[in-house]
Amino acid sequence: MTTTTAIRHPTRPGSAGICRGCWDQMHMPIPIGGPLSLPLRAFGITRSKMNPDICTICERSFQYVKKQRQITSGATILFADIRNYTGLSERLGAVELSHIVSLFQDCSAGAIWANDGIVNKQMGDGLMAIFNFPISRKDHAAAAIIAALEIQRACAEALSEIDVGEPFGVGVGIHTGDVQIGEFSSFHSDFTAIGGVVNQAARLESQAAPGEILISAETALQAPELVTESEMRMLSLKGIEQPVKARILRAG
Amino acid sequence: MTTTTAIRHPTRPGSAGICRGCWDQMHMPIPIGGPLSLPLRAFGITRSKMNPDICTICERSFQYVKKQRQITSGATILFADIRNYTGLSERLGAVELSHIVSLFQDCSAGAIWANDGIVNKQMGDGLMAIFNFPISRKDHAAAAIIAALEIQRACAEALSEIDVGEPFGVGVGIHTGDVQIGEFSSFHSDFTAIGGVVNQAARLESQAAPGEILISAETALQAPELVTESEMRMLSLKGIEQPVKARILRAG
Repeated sequence: MTTTTAIRHPTRPGSAGICRGCWDQMHMPIPIGGPLSLPLRAFGITRSKMNPDICTICERSFQYVKKQRQITSGATILFADIRNYTGLSERLGAVELSHIVSLFQDCSAGAIWANDGIVNKQMGDGLMAIFNFPISRKDHAAAAIIAALEIQRACAEALSEIDVGEPFGVGVGIHTGDVQIGEFSSFHSDFTAIGGVVNQAARLESQAAPGEILISAETALQAPELVTESEMRMLSLKGIEQPVKARILRAG
Repeated sequence: MTTTTAIRHPTRPGSAGICRGCWDQMHMPIPIGGPLSLPLRAFGITRSKMNPDICTICERSFQYVKKQRQITSGATILFADIRNYTGLSERLGAVELSHIVSLFQDCSAGAIWANDGIVNKQMGDGLMAIFNFPISRKDHAAAAIIAALEIQRACAEALSEIDVGEPFGVGVGIHTGDVQIGEFSSFHSDFTAIGGVVNQAARLESQAAPGEILISAETALQAPELVTESEMRMLSLKGIEQPVKARILRAG
């Protein structure tokens, strides 16, 4: 195995010896594992919470990495959340609710990291993931779809033991296109992605039933082998004038 | 002026010499301004991005601060976002869109910090703020309402110069009650709040028209002087069985 393949395909999330984001964006080898990483820890450079195979430099120093405040980049955006969570949150106790949220967040992150995505935002019962930045993946649409299938599989297994008296489960929405990546407030230094593509991914997710993955036509076009024979649905999304065509996948 | 009042009421956000969160939660004086703060910076202890008057210990080390994984606490939750943003994001260019998002995030954060709240989550065109943790405020409901009025005022002024050919503006939702505060995934260390109260605040915000502040009956009850003669509206919120009564305020 050459160094390059070792960098690009760690056997499991968190095993990369150098930061894959800094490598893909700057070709700079930043040690995040092994003894070489120890001196950097004194400067706060450690594995990122967004993905353990990238470092806190790519997480918090976007302008240093890209030499500009924001970039436009092709990416795939994935939103996931626990459907019917508002109803659950009205009825469940604090311990049960936080147990469900933790299971969802941990299962989802594992699936996203295994496919080179980053968990960019966690919002209670939901999350937003970016594929193709800072870890580059030409097949980012396929990576996101595979991550979504794995999210559904892992969450269904983890959440199946919990009986709350009504059906609940995870919904996922995925959309691909140009997004703006950068820092969009003067005080928060974590980068994020904004733009129409991000919002449409969120809108798709909001229409997913428990267990469903809603995939935009743009994403499906880049990974046709993963959506063959999947159901097609026309959706009217809030704030978007034209009806949107989506493919629907379910795990298992 | 005694030391205590100097701690509790800094003249402007970011001027506190010791972390107000660590002081309120642990009565521990953590220097975050002046020469005493310099040695701590070497350990990554600096002003928090959530509020410059708290430090990265309260932000990232919830279990150290509270000696448990999560607590149930009375708090007021505020959600704000740019209404009609999905439509805007379909039509505007990257630079214009990110300019609008930055203005919104910066104006809102200033208003929240000035009233001792924290910007717990930023999600593109939206944010979630918590009042009463880690900075304690008995009048957290009133603090959130005053922050919301200031968000509307500051954003209306900042965004008035931007002509995008259709009305847009900020919507705010506020709800008060017991929330679960803690870390709800094994990999992210920033604390957050979850629970029915958080979700209802988000649902209220989703029904606010541009310029409106929707205030739940529970919040209004704790700050009656701020909502006298305000309009009352009955709302049917997604996931919540009973209709919800809300007070409506507008800035100016």
